[in-house]
Amino acid sequence: MQAPRVLVVAATHGNERNGAWLVESWRQEPSSLNSSGLELLLEIGNPAAHRANRRYIDRDLNRSFVQDLLADAACDELEILRARELLAQFGPQGSRPAQAVIDLHSTTSSMGNCLVVYGRRPTDLALAAAIQAQLGLPIYLHEGDAAQRGFLVESWPCGLVIEVGPVPQGVIEPRLCLQSQLALEAALAALAAAKRGCLAQPPALVVHRHRASLDLPRDGGGWPLACLHPQRQGRDWQPMGPGDPLYRTAAGESIAYEPPAGLEDQQVWPLFINEAAYGEKRIALSLTSRERWAVDPSWAESLAALLTEQN
Amino acid sequence: MQAPRVLVVAATHGNERNGAWLVESWRQEPSSLNSSGLELLLEIGNPAAHRANRRYIDRDLNRSFVQDLLADAACDELEILRARELLAQFGPQGSRPAQAVIDLHSTTSSMGNCLVVYGRRPTDLALAAAIQAQLGLPIYLHEGDAAQRGFLVESWPCGLVIEVGPVPQGVIEPRLCLQSQLALEAALAALAAAKRGCLAQPPALVVHRHRASLDLPRDGGGWPLACLHPQRQGRDWQPMGPGDPLYRTAAGESIAYEPPAGLEDQQVWPLFINEAAYGEKRIALSLTSRERWAVDPSWAESLAALLTEQN
Repeated sequence: MQAPRVLVVAATHGNERNGAWLVESWRQEPSSLNSSGLELLLEIGNPAAHRANRRYIDRDLNRSFVQDLLADAACDELEILRARELLAQFGPQGSRPAQAVIDLHSTTSSMGNCLVVYGRRPTDLALAAAIQAQLGLPIYLHEGDAAQRGFLVESWPCGLVIEVGPVPQGVIEPRLCLQSQLALEAALAALAAAKRGCLAQPPALVVHRHRASLDLPRDGGGWPLACLHPQRQGRDWQPMGPGDPLYRTAAGESIAYEPPAGLEDQQVWPLFINEAAYGEKRIALSLTSRERWAVDPSWAESLAALLTEQN
Repeated sequence: MQAPRVLVVAATHGNERNGAWLVESWRQEPSSLNSSGLELLLEIGNPAAHRANRRYIDRDLNRSFVQDLLADAACDELEILRARELLAQFGPQGSRPAQAVIDLHSTTSSMGNCLVVYGRRPTDLALAAAIQAQLGLPIYLHEGDAAQRGFLVESWPCGLVIEVGPVPQGVIEPRLCLQSQLALEAALAALAAAKRGCLAQPPALVVHRHRASLDLPRDGGGWPLACLHPQRQGRDWQPMGPGDPLYRTAAGESIAYEPPAGLEDQQVWPLFINEAAYGEKRIALSLTSRERWAVDPSWAESLAALLTEQN
């Protein structure tokens, strides 16, 4: 029985250098990563952007896995070409298909070591639940956000993002590398256990479910009229309620949080507070609801079936 | 008697956004900055790079104030053009000359709120001593570094850098903005006092004098074989001696600090540890000696003379 093949991607954003440094190091010295016996495909997501130390060249690679763009022969942006290439090699119909993908990211926000899951695929939830049971990592469940789509991991039947921060763009920081490796090894161990049919699942999963994103207050020309409030900066995963200080003007005036429609009178848990790369997306922070879900036994069965069927 | 004119520059590096946001905010609401009665010229150093959210477009503006480049009519790199423009407007022979310049920078290193002084001009030392006496800010004295020259402030008869960190590139962070403003207002108050002939000087000045810079260990292709050691990361301004852990490989092996020639058996104080923008300069950290200098009364006299002579 062949071992499951797992694609491990880093530098999907070229200026997130910790994961890229790890991937190159593991290529040179495979024994320094515990693969739990899986076959690993170690890839630099966006080599051109990594060489240029930029997030991307033409467009965000991690918003490029969109069917209509990938199918549009007239589209020759560098990241679309790279997305097609990754799929042709390692995608479900590729020449050397991977059953699962782990995408290593970093952020300038104080997100700590965490997981990002896109939507509610049973295979992803089984994997995330196993990692959370093992390491306690919090989970950002991204869904219902029409403005942000085309994430890399969505193109594989199972996949999630390991996100670590805070770290500046362009910097390799040892603590962050250790965190990424720890989470990746837990993910690989969980996949190996699922393949053996003995994946340990906790009774419940805690997720922070995406609800909305907020921008800084801006003038008509787009200039920010305030920055994050010092009492909010760095407080990812900590609850916020109506009236809490959220922004501050250069003159020192506080601006309080006003819930957007649908979130009135609720606490929210802000994430990706002041992420450098989201300025251009006009996102100063995202708001989530903290939810506790019972783990469904069918999730682990789906993951075991996926890892078995193609071997 | 006309008030001294002071040039305040931000975003000399386009992705250092805190200072730029402050400068734009002060332009819109001048009362939010205490100018101590001085005439301020508020400038974005590199507007094109700031719009692009990049450190620079063609070359580092803060290494472009080099006489032979500025005088070379064939050189039309964007930052050389901008350096000429700043000098033509606000330089000592410019149309609206400033007597002093304060250049607002930020770093991804844990430098805190500090001053960078280039060389040993009496006017700069008087200003730095007054700010240190007021706020206790540490001073990085940059000299004797042939690889790094052409700094903006050197083209004015008095000038220094206010450096704050850590902050990622591309991020506006409230605490850093407060630090920059606090240091700038102290500098302006000191210049105003010097103009009145009543600059308070401490008996001594503590400087951290540049001695050498170190790169990461690299293989023949330039790939980093190790990153900073977690026990060194973030410990700017803290002493280091021979044998202290400095780097760590991806496999977890520690590499100890070995003093370069001329610094054997000495403690050094590392600065700009793991600054993102210095990767391309192959600088992982700079080594300094901590020195206590008696303040010379002639320094304050030089500064007072400078601020008086041109009015």
